[in-house]
Amino acid sequence: MIIVNFKTYSEATGRSAVDLAKKAEKINNETKVAVGVAPQFVDITAVAESVEIPVFSQHVDPIKPGNFTGHVLAESVKAAGAVGTLINHSERRLKLSDIGEVIEITREHNLTSLVCANTARIAAAIAVLEPDIIAVEPPELIGTGIPVSKAKPEVVTGTVELVRRVNRKVTILCGAGITNGEDVAAALKLGTQGVLVASGIVKAKDPYTVMREFAEATKS
Amino acid sequence: MIIVNFKTYSEATGRSAVDLAKKAEKINNETKVAVGVAPQFVDITAVAESVEIPVFSQHVDPIKPGNFTGHVLAESVKAAGAVGTLINHSERRLKLSDIGEVIEITREHNLTSLVCANTARIAAAIAVLEPDIIAVEPPELIGTGIPVSKAKPEVVTGTVELVRRVNRKVTILCGAGITNGEDVAAALKLGTQGVLVASGIVKAKDPYTVMREFAEATKS
Amino acid sequence: MIIVNFKTYSEATGRSAVDLAKKAEKINNETKVAVGVAPQFVDITAVAESVEIPVFSQHVDPIKPGNFTGHVLAESVKAAGAVGTLINHSERRLKLSDIGEVIEITREHNLTSLVCANTARIAAAIAVLEPDIIAVEPPELIGTGIPVSKAKPEVVTGTVELVRRVNRKVTILCGAGITNGEDVAAALKLGTQGVLVASGIVKAKDPYTVMREFAEATKS
Amino acid sequence: MIIVNFKTYSEATGRSAVDLAKKAEKINNETKVAVGVAPQFVDITAVAESVEIPVFSQHVDPIKPGNFTGHVLAESVKAAGAVGTLINHSERRLKLSDIGEVIEITREHNLTSLVCANTARIAAAIAVLEPDIIAVEPPELIGTGIPVSKAKPEVVTGTVELVRRVNRKVTILCGAGITNGEDVAAALKLGTQGVLVASGIVKAKDPYTVMREFAEATKS
Repeated sequence: MIIVNFKTYSEATGRSAVDLAKKAEKINNETKVAVGVAPQFVDITAVAESVEIPVFSQHVDPIKPGNFTGHVLAESVKAAGAVGTLINHSERRLKLSDIGEVIEITREHNLTSLVCANTARIAAAIAVLEPDIIAVEPPELIGTGIPVSKAKPEVVTGTVELVRRVNRKVTILCGAGITNGEDVAAALKLGTQGVLVASGIVKAKDPYTVMREFAEATKS
Repeated sequence: MIIVNFKTYSEATGRSAVDLAKKAEKINNETKVAVGVAPQFVDITAVAESVEIPVFSQHVDPIKPGNFTGHVLAESVKAAGAVGTLINHSERRLKLSDIGEVIEITREHNLTSLVCANTARIAAAIAVLEPDIIAVEPPELIGTGIPVSKAKPEVVTGTVELVRRVNRKVTILCGAGITNGEDVAAALKLGTQGVLVASGIVKAKDPYTVMREFAEATKS
Repeated sequence: MIIVNFKTYSEATGRSAVDLAKKAEKINNETKVAVGVAPQFVDITAVAESVEIPVFSQHVDPIKPGNFTGHVLAESVKAAGAVGTLINHSERRLKLSDIGEVIEITREHNLTSLVCANTARIAAAIAVLEPDIIAVEPPELIGTGIPVSKAKPEVVTGTVELVRRVNRKVTILCGAGITNGEDVAAALKLGTQGVLVASGIVKAKDPYTVMREFAEATKS
Repeated sequence: MIIVNFKTYSEATGRSAVDLAKKAEKINNETKVAVGVAPQFVDITAVAESVEIPVFSQHVDPIKPGNFTGHVLAESVKAAGAVGTLINHSERRLKLSDIGEVIEITREHNLTSLVCANTARIAAAIAVLEPDIIAVEPPELIGTGIPVSKAKPEVVTGTVELVRRVNRKVTILCGAGITNGEDVAAALKLGTQGVLVASGIVKAKDPYTVMREFAEATKS
């Protein structure tokens, strides 16, 4: 599984968000490797209308419909076409109690929850809350091009080990610095089921080719 | 000027957001009173494609394009069709330095800035930062149906007085508890140029009729 | 074990903080039941100089010595005489990653970590992080006088059950609405090792007598 | 006026906080230049008991006595001996509405309010709220040793100009990178009444001598 986080990169908003999502869909169809995308809130509708691969929100607030100005409502991102959401990304850390509430909200609305963790132990704590997917990402490697699966393999194996002690079902991803197929293959070898990636794809000269390489690497 | 904040009300998201925006546009065209709407982030594109009245974002983050997951980028809400944004709503209060940065960002991108204030003195502090519009709203009256223009007229007149000492150009609105035409007329009589309203319209049985009453009241 | 949180009550600051701590110490000595106190930051030194029972800080920031204005440094609260700290109280919720960091900091400095949780599942997530003590407190009962041990016994037993699945050593407390000896006895019967209490003691007409009743109840 | 912010530096907590405060008092007495200190919360009592110069808290929360765990109460820092407080330091930024509330709380309790600003315009916005003292500090220079008064004199003169348009009484300080007497003299020449300083004093090999140099420079 490969999830591409579009962040607020100018290379992946508006029409460019739709274009990139279409390339991700092409890879998905050509390689049969599951590829999902997480565009900005304002781009969810257009992206979800253009592709059939899973579209994630980048965040959802722990709220129900009501008087919350400037918040992100699970019901609305779902109506816009998202099938899941990132939660607690290192660039949008949440309070622990809010993580718990958002996971419950996603469950109520049949949204896939992908919760980010900065360490193996934090990943295990999250695993107790029974999200669908956990992605471990050492923040110091995010955006660096230094792949977690090679620079800090012990974080990845530690996550798999500690998470599995408390939760046998949750899907485990890793992320941070993933730039090429080798990094992806290394991530799978360490026991994960895929990667969460952002600049490695979005900022690549040829995102299609890099995604293709990522997808092929998951099969090796 | 009437700005309708859709908040995260279920009555004003998805298709209902577009419907309500179309009613607002109808009032705008029939009465020549400026009516704007502020839908949720995910609804901005669909609303902006459906109407020609001003569409506001409910919030924008103090960021430039880059690695900010789950944030709201001015460039993207503009590309989605918004012409301005609410800032510092009482349900999304910002740090002072962030208010300053967001106002500058809106200026760079030719977006209209509408900054909310909870008291007259806070409104005056904001006025120094030279936004386009200030809306004073005592938080304790928001959503109550007790109109600020009648329950706390001194907050409104105090705002006009203190703001005008430091800024002669900024448009001044008031909000909180505004429910009918009388409340709107009272707001204008106290020196404002319009109202910021949410539940009074969104939760009304017949939003069209209430908006019409609001618009007519601005002419009396 | 009984931990008395002084919060920012005017009945428990300055000289009154020292007085209340001395009463707690008297109960501790008379009944041999462990009683600890958590005064405000500015009162830690005076309280710690006056009593020999454990003094907790109400919060510690996830920082090391350095340029952090207005923050609370573990090293400094320890030097002031605290032997531990509350973490993530419902009135001072932390981001998950910060809870992890603060627990590590307390470990480094031999401070006792007491982490609060709002639900059984959140308590279990915290248990994975291996603090010394966990206190479960449903926020909606805090300060109400409706005791968690009677109104929501399932939260307490659920906490004990879920926490023990992942951590056999951590001390488990409960809190919220604990007002008399019966509530304390009920808490222990449900499987906890003590209570975290605030207004039930601090706002009592005769805190000494109520603490005495609490302490006796732990023995029944 | 010279205010020394002790931050959470290990060189200025516990006994070292008292020692440094005594040196500041000595300078104050020898040179008749007003010197104040801002130690950590836990050190306020000991520092205030040891010196007669003004002691500031580094932060105060916008709260009244009550159920606020881990918060900083104005009444308590005053009872501990503080005569004022820093507000909105760049390392502890506050929401605009909270700045307004804290200034009012300090007024009620006769505490001196020293509010920090990152730009000239933000300083002017704060000036509308009528604190006792404003300190402008470009965050990018804090702790660098590159003095604002030399590297960005236009920020200082801009602050003086914009603040004076809306408030003739407030004392204006500047800070960030102030390391020697020359920097202080430059700050005064640009129209300020003094400096807010931290590492320049706290991290100096001989804080007494540097403070002495600062104090003498205010007279030149």
